[in-house]
Amino acid sequence: MCQLLGMNCNGPTDICFSFEGFCARGGKTDDHKDGWGIAFFEGAACRVFLDDKPSATSAIAKLIREYPIKSTNVVAHIRKATIGPVGLENCHPFTRELWGRHWVFAHNGDLPTLKSGSLGTYRSVGQTDSERAFCLIMNQLRDKFPQQQPPMEELFPVLQEMTQAIASHGIFNYLLSDGKHLFVHCSTKLCYIVRQSPFAAAHLIDEDLTVDFQELATPCDRVAIIATTCLTDNETWTTIQPGELLVFQDGLPLIFQDDWACKVSRY
Amino acid sequence: MCQLLGMNCNGPTDICFSFEGFCARGGKTDDHKDGWGIAFFEGAACRVFLDDKPSATSAIAKLIREYPIKSTNVVAHIRKATIGPVGLENCHPFTRELWGRHWVFAHNGDLPTLKSGSLGTYRSVGQTDSERAFCLIMNQLRDKFPQQQPPMEELFPVLQEMTQAIASHGIFNYLLSDGKHLFVHCSTKLCYIVRQSPFAAAHLIDEDLTVDFQELATPCDRVAIIATTCLTDNETWTTIQPGELLVFQDGLPLIFQDDWACKVSRY
Repeated sequence: MCQLLGMNCNGPTDICFSFEGFCARGGKTDDHKDGWGIAFFEGAACRVFLDDKPSATSAIAKLIREYPIKSTNVVAHIRKATIGPVGLENCHPFTRELWGRHWVFAHNGDLPTLKSGSLGTYRSVGQTDSERAFCLIMNQLRDKFPQQQPPMEELFPVLQEMTQAIASHGIFNYLLSDGKHLFVHCSTKLCYIVRQSPFAAAHLIDEDLTVDFQELATPCDRVAIIATTCLTDNETWTTIQPGELLVFQDGLPLIFQDDWACKVSRY
Repeated sequence: MCQLLGMNCNGPTDICFSFEGFCARGGKTDDHKDGWGIAFFEGAACRVFLDDKPSATSAIAKLIREYPIKSTNVVAHIRKATIGPVGLENCHPFTRELWGRHWVFAHNGDLPTLKSGSLGTYRSVGQTDSERAFCLIMNQLRDKFPQQQPPMEELFPVLQEMTQAIASHGIFNYLLSDGKHLFVHCSTKLCYIVRQSPFAAAHLIDEDLTVDFQELATPCDRVAIIATTCLTDNETWTTIQPGELLVFQDGLPLIFQDDWACKVSRY
């Protein structure tokens, strides 16, 4: 299996602290050492760093830990290969352009019965079930909304329906972002924390490192961190329920009402 | 304007030496300091490093200069902004997936009269004429060959025709790669060199650095380097003629005969 790390914020924020602990799981405190990747959205732009080396020892991961890139949406992944060989083309996150925006996707789990389906607009470059699932989502979204990105209340139920269909093929924990929203689906294991004022200190589980966000953050900052398992041992993480699809925007999960109109939750 | 650097080889090769000299032009020996980018193909995989900082001082460019990534096709670009503001979304190379392969593109020149056209499958994320031209090429190739990548003798004349049409809007020097081939179009200024046995020493123009390829390369290695202006002062670079579209494969330009059947040139 693999591990996921995501961040969604109301302003550009660096992920150095969380990435430090996450990275250690790629060959140091855990055995997810078959490559890693991280995507940073900066405005409309998206840059992705990939490596097929273990994140704990990768020179590129070292740069990311030490070079603070400020981003509003981050999707990161450390891989333990199951379906698809070890190789750079099979490192998550995967990216495609849809409706003039970059979309990025990372997956944890196996989808052994998911077929590649007919040849759509988006096709896999590598051999993973994960990239196949991502292309399927992109193809179905494009088919359903060929002209432009629909409002969230139209997009969400469509994404939820296709997510459930794909999840029936196995385990489908994923992070998906268009640079504004971070879609988070839990099939078996995902949790999150929202850090906002009043801020406190946080201590990593995987490294003996503490950061006092009170010293670093301003009262307006709000940051949601999503991970396969919690990254800190002195904060309360919220477990996402199996089958749940969340959408984070500006550092908060949106709440959908019965008519699918969405509101920002009062966290 | 901007500057281009490309590499096409018959085996995985690092570009550290050429990138060292090229990088210096982004804020040190020249003023192309509005961002830079480099794409490395490694098998089917492609990883892209982008930065809106000058390449001469960028921490990510420093990593690339010092961390040898071995690749068969490289496309790099340093930007001096003309059309489209300075920003990460406007840094080249741009990437899209077509026929299950990654494609990367970088452009030097201005295309002031190129319209965005109707909304096709591929759309721009940023504001440059360059990304618009790239999307136009991708859309037209997909429209012409919807199912799969055609043989080179079918692809080449189609690409040449659409290149000429776009070039009529201004200056259109470009590098385009699908990971196997490197397409090189000269509108005003591009040159190349093929390094192969017997190898010799090369000395950079932009930095006082010499590398003796005889010590580093094996007799089978063949590497083509393409650049806006020559990078070394003790080698003979070949000027590409305005209007010429070349295709490099395995470190050599292909030669097309009248019936478009292509052969590897006897260099």
